[in-house]
Amino acid sequence: MTEVMTSTTAPASDGHTVDVAALGELLLGNWADVRRQARALAGNPELHKVEGLSHTEHRLRAFKQLGILVQQDGVHRAFPSRLGGNDDHGGNVAGFEELVLADPSVQIKAGVQWGLFGSAVMHLGSAEHQDKWLPGIMSLEIPGCFAMTEIGHGSDVASIATTATYDSSTGEFVINTPFRAAWKEYIGNAAVDGLAAVVFAQLITRGVNHGVHAFYVQLRDPATKEFFPGIDGLDDSIKGGLNGIDNGRLCFNNVRIPRSNLLNRYGDVTADGVYSSPIASPGRRFFTMLGTLVQGRVSLNGAAVAASKVALKIAIQYATERRQFNAASDTEEVVLMDYQRHQRRLLPLLATTYAATFAHEQLLVKFDGVFSGAHDSDEDRQDLETLAAALKSMTTWHALDTLQECREACGGAGFMVENRFTSLRADLDVYATFEGDNTVLLQLVAKRLLADYSKEFRNLDFGVLARFVVGQAADLTLNRTGLRQVAQFVADSGSPQKSAKALKDEDTQHELLVGRVQTMVADVAGALKEAAKLPKDKAAEIFNDNQNELIEAARAHAELLQWEAFTEALHRVEDAGTKKVLTRLRDLFGLGLIEKHLDWYLMNGRVSMQRARTLGPYINRLLAKLRPHALDLVDAFGYGPEHLRATIATGIERERQDEARDYFRIQRASSDGPVDEKVLIQRAKASAKK
Amino acid sequence: MTEVMTSTTAPASDGHTVDVAALGELLLGNWADVRRQARALAGNPELHKVEGLSHTEHRLRAFKQLGILVQQDGVHRAFPSRLGGNDDHGGNVAGFEELVLADPSVQIKAGVQWGLFGSAVMHLGSAEHQDKWLPGIMSLEIPGCFAMTEIGHGSDVASIATTATYDSSTGEFVINTPFRAAWKEYIGNAAVDGLAAVVFAQLITRGVNHGVHAFYVQLRDPATKEFFPGIDGLDDSIKGGLNGIDNGRLCFNNVRIPRSNLLNRYGDVTADGVYSSPIASPGRRFFTMLGTLVQGRVSLNGAAVAASKVALKIAIQYATERRQFNAASDTEEVVLMDYQRHQRRLLPLLATTYAATFAHEQLLVKFDGVFSGAHDSDEDRQDLETLAAALKSMTTWHALDTLQECREACGGAGFMVENRFTSLRADLDVYATFEGDNTVLLQLVAKRLLADYSKEFRNLDFGVLARFVVGQAADLTLNRTGLRQVAQFVADSGSPQKSAKALKDEDTQHELLVGRVQTMVADVAGALKEAAKLPKDKAAEIFNDNQNELIEAARAHAELLQWEAFTEALHRVEDAGTKKVLTRLRDLFGLGLIEKHLDWYLMNGRVSMQRARTLGPYINRLLAKLRPHALDLVDAFGYGPEHLRATIATGIERERQDEARDYFRIQRASSDGPVDEKVLIQRAKASAKK
Repeated sequence: MTEVMTSTTAPASDGHTVDVAALGELLLGNWADVRRQARALAGNPELHKVEGLSHTEHRLRAFKQLGILVQQDGVHRAFPSRLGGNDDHGGNVAGFEELVLADPSVQIKAGVQWGLFGSAVMHLGSAEHQDKWLPGIMSLEIPGCFAMTEIGHGSDVASIATTATYDSSTGEFVINTPFRAAWKEYIGNAAVDGLAAVVFAQLITRGVNHGVHAFYVQLRDPATKEFFPGIDGLDDSIKGGLNGIDNGRLCFNNVRIPRSNLLNRYGDVTADGVYSSPIASPGRRFFTMLGTLVQGRVSLNGAAVAASKVALKIAIQYATERRQFNAASDTEEVVLMDYQRHQRRLLPLLATTYAATFAHEQLLVKFDGVFSGAHDSDEDRQDLETLAAALKSMTTWHALDTLQECREACGGAGFMVENRFTSLRADLDVYATFEGDNTVLLQLVAKRLLADYSKEFRNLDFGVLARFVVGQAADLTLNRTGLRQVAQFVADSGSPQKSAKALKDEDTQHELLVGRVQTMVADVAGALKEAAKLPKDKAAEIFNDNQNELIEAARAHAELLQWEAFTEALHRVEDAGTKKVLTRLRDLFGLGLIEKHLDWYLMNGRVSMQRARTLGPYINRLLAKLRPHALDLVDAFGYGPEHLRATIATGIERERQDEARDYFRIQRASSDGPVDEKVLIQRAKASAKK
Repeated sequence: MTEVMTSTTAPASDGHTVDVAALGELLLGNWADVRRQARALAGNPELHKVEGLSHTEHRLRAFKQLGILVQQDGVHRAFPSRLGGNDDHGGNVAGFEELVLADPSVQIKAGVQWGLFGSAVMHLGSAEHQDKWLPGIMSLEIPGCFAMTEIGHGSDVASIATTATYDSSTGEFVINTPFRAAWKEYIGNAAVDGLAAVVFAQLITRGVNHGVHAFYVQLRDPATKEFFPGIDGLDDSIKGGLNGIDNGRLCFNNVRIPRSNLLNRYGDVTADGVYSSPIASPGRRFFTMLGTLVQGRVSLNGAAVAASKVALKIAIQYATERRQFNAASDTEEVVLMDYQRHQRRLLPLLATTYAATFAHEQLLVKFDGVFSGAHDSDEDRQDLETLAAALKSMTTWHALDTLQECREACGGAGFMVENRFTSLRADLDVYATFEGDNTVLLQLVAKRLLADYSKEFRNLDFGVLARFVVGQAADLTLNRTGLRQVAQFVADSGSPQKSAKALKDEDTQHELLVGRVQTMVADVAGALKEAAKLPKDKAAEIFNDNQNELIEAARAHAELLQWEAFTEALHRVEDAGTKKVLTRLRDLFGLGLIEKHLDWYLMNGRVSMQRARTLGPYINRLLAKLRPHALDLVDAFGYGPEHLRATIATGIERERQDEARDYFRIQRASSDGPVDEKVLIQRAKASAKK
């Protein structure tokens, strides 16, 4: 047995040491101080999820918790300084993300109130709107809703059917829900708490529909909490998770609001009903308005990464203490983390979590650049949208996979709600489909890849992409930052010889990952080429025949972005031991991606059969080398017991195992312990042979 | 647009028709009548899960529901006729499985009471034990526990540390929990309801430990519900699901029970402490005792398949009604099921569910053969164990994947608890790790594959397998039914030429799937060959280095078994249309497996690069051909609204969509509907050009 196989506390057998504190700082990133403050806040027991509450009790608690966030000054960073905020967009999201550690319901309910409802007033309204409503929104005096999604249209926001028709005779907009599918649905704060809402509706004036705009609508009488006349609602009741949030439906029966309640930054109507907008193109106007809401996706990305970290810390801590089955000796059982399969289950998820952390930090920097105004060109905004869509899809799915694998890796203990996995997983489940369904978001990314690949795809307007991103690409100039010269693909596609270099080489990994994205995009582009010339229905058929490939190309691109972010961060590490270990973790991530898509690499001649067969064994060796550092790598996440709150991560399993081993050690040493029947049989056989 | 793309009600465009009723009968299988009765029972609202109950309320309800099952005669089929049962083992499990439709908590609590606690008394006890305790167990007068698992040992039952030491001076066994890790844990009925328990403990008499045996122990005073002296417990409280069951811990502090409370079918102790057993080998004795409990795995397999069916029926129903995005026209939105990606998400899961259904039926027949005594040779029992382990792993994971994919495919609606997915998924989560952790079970299968491959592995006793299946293989003769001549592999391994045949050919699929299992087993066997000659610690290292491959070989074997079962069932279908459609579904399953493992087939030269590249497009064409039959294929499951109980499966989405389309149709036809700003811009551009 090697040292690795039998010990969990001995120093790493490879002589490398991770500087856990320095690595922790690297992971905290640009907004380290904000994160530390937010983690202190999230450690407050008053903010923690209490399991087993009914959904009505949980809602009451979550509402009170929002009040605590206000008192503790935890949620106003993004708002204007003149109203008591900090104009700090990146810091705001960084702090917000950490709230998932307390209770995802608190996080998402805060997101509804300040990130969606408040943000819509701030970004879509005028200074007067901000002055009028933001103080009450910030203080929670006006709990509110973000009423965009309808039963009939989730991801396809452009198709929502609620109307806001201007009546110049009274100077009012008439908000109306024309049929059942147009009820606003899954709206947070709608079932109970919401006094007002930002309602998205088709703005109609003088017989023309100017597309989706946002309106401020009072929902309930603050005194009675009853709906105002013309407004109706339904309670969504119990959900798969996030039950601290009172989601519900809203319906408007010709509800009249003043003209001044149109959040008019990107479109306004005069008293006599003349529409005007600073953005001439309706498509681009729609995209610009929705673009202000990208922070939802950015924050979910960060929250999903945080939940993955918590899960891995708990599961890996347990796996270094828990013993099961004796392989190498009759008396000593093996620590779970020493099993190859257990390493195969958890360490690639850890590598992906690191990649996702570094990629998220890049996204946050990009977001802050755009929203602070430091870097907010059209190109920056496009990049931000694409990056957020790509990464949010990857990390929200990754969090679910990680929570589930960790839960199973801890066996029955993983199923107990006290160990966090099942509760976090239930809450995070919906992250995969809200703030943009992941499958739809990946198609948004794919559209961008195609547009970058060739200008003929820049006006792509068939398929799912048609309405979702209509107008987005229309005004674009060719932009390569998102895709890194996909257009140059044909000239320098990877040759099999190159890929025959050792796969662990950083440049080889990069070349393989980039080459796959380029080729996949080129292949789909080739298949779609004729579609642009065909009638709409035929074009849609061709598009549909390639939908799966298109989505896979987008996924490949997102994986590449994560790999690049990990590698970039790696180059900033100075401590030699940490760098060595992190390089192995990055290799595990990169080679894991290549292994996952090995069929593609083989089919396309990028990796030889011989080389492919070496990949699995090489990854297994990497796992064994990373094993001694597994605990350091999760300790660097920097969570305290107030964040983990999992019985099995408290060291209790080690205590129990030690107690059991002591018992058997004493029994073996004593002369009156029972003898095993099998031993007697062996002895009998042995003496019979003599 | 083809008809398939635009219509959901039109007859299938390929001219084939599925005979839904006949297919339904095929799916109901050998115990069709029992299943119909059990489904009628499961349709009873009194047995349904009520969402949002606290765990204490849910427990009370579940306990009452067990009483209803007794009254309705739903749970006694396996018990002896002389005590009011039917001696019907297959029918018992078939009926039990369907209870998952009512509430998984009811199913599993019933499983604890009659399938584990009652079964243990029946199978491990004498006729006197049966006469004494079974009537009370059957009537629920004695709610009881199956106290096997300990905190420190889940899957490794042979290592449990609870002792039952015989004291000949009083004629009693002393049951004792020596340390905290030996507390019985996750025990259903332990927290509240259990009056008695079958406790598994190391039987020690005259200084010799004869291994794990089962003892009947009274836990609580029926009058006061208080623990008897010496017994202690803890409530596991809230879990990730199955909260209708009162799981808990049990601890025994030198609790004395009469000698006659040893369930003595496979091992007995005389009044003066002499141990005897009809099975000389302790290892084999252990395996035989545990073997009587295989029905837990068999039932979970069936329940997981049932849950997958419910999920697919709901999601596919919704996908044929729900419209989102307009691809082919400006006015008509596309039905979700017409999107290639949606087909890619749901139809392969449907194909796997069919394969799992047919494979489960074979398992159930095997189980019934062994337990009825009709076919209960050692070989039959070994086959049953292997088959149950292989299939239970596959289907419990499959159910989780299916429930999650269906939930996401239904977007926000999928997250609402009223649509079943999240609730079923939470409850079924633990199926992957209880009644044998899937990862451990696959290693059990792998051991069998190795033993069949070569006799030198028949005494394999290192690694995880050592204690888990100790004794199982020791007395085996070579047995080929499980593996279909793996040993002959070297002679006739598949050549690349053969695999170049059209992949859709049934024999080709079979050859590829069989070849993969054979080669993987042979490869692992080659790597492990020298291990047998090495010291235990070195052998364990080699074993560990191949653990992942070993598990993957077992999975490949399980997939092959499912494919063979599907194909066997296909050959029994007479109706031409049904046969055609089912053949495509089987092809989708088979080719899906080959696609999933395409890297392996390429690396090992079984599929050429050229052939591999045709696979994805071929599968996409299969999906499009299956699309028109998707609804028929889920309707054949035969569930009524009383089983589905999902709002989105009631046709409400179609109503809403029709209402919306009517609204827009009328608006387009009218002259005073609003004009789209985009249309005005286009018109302006057009007239400017003139």
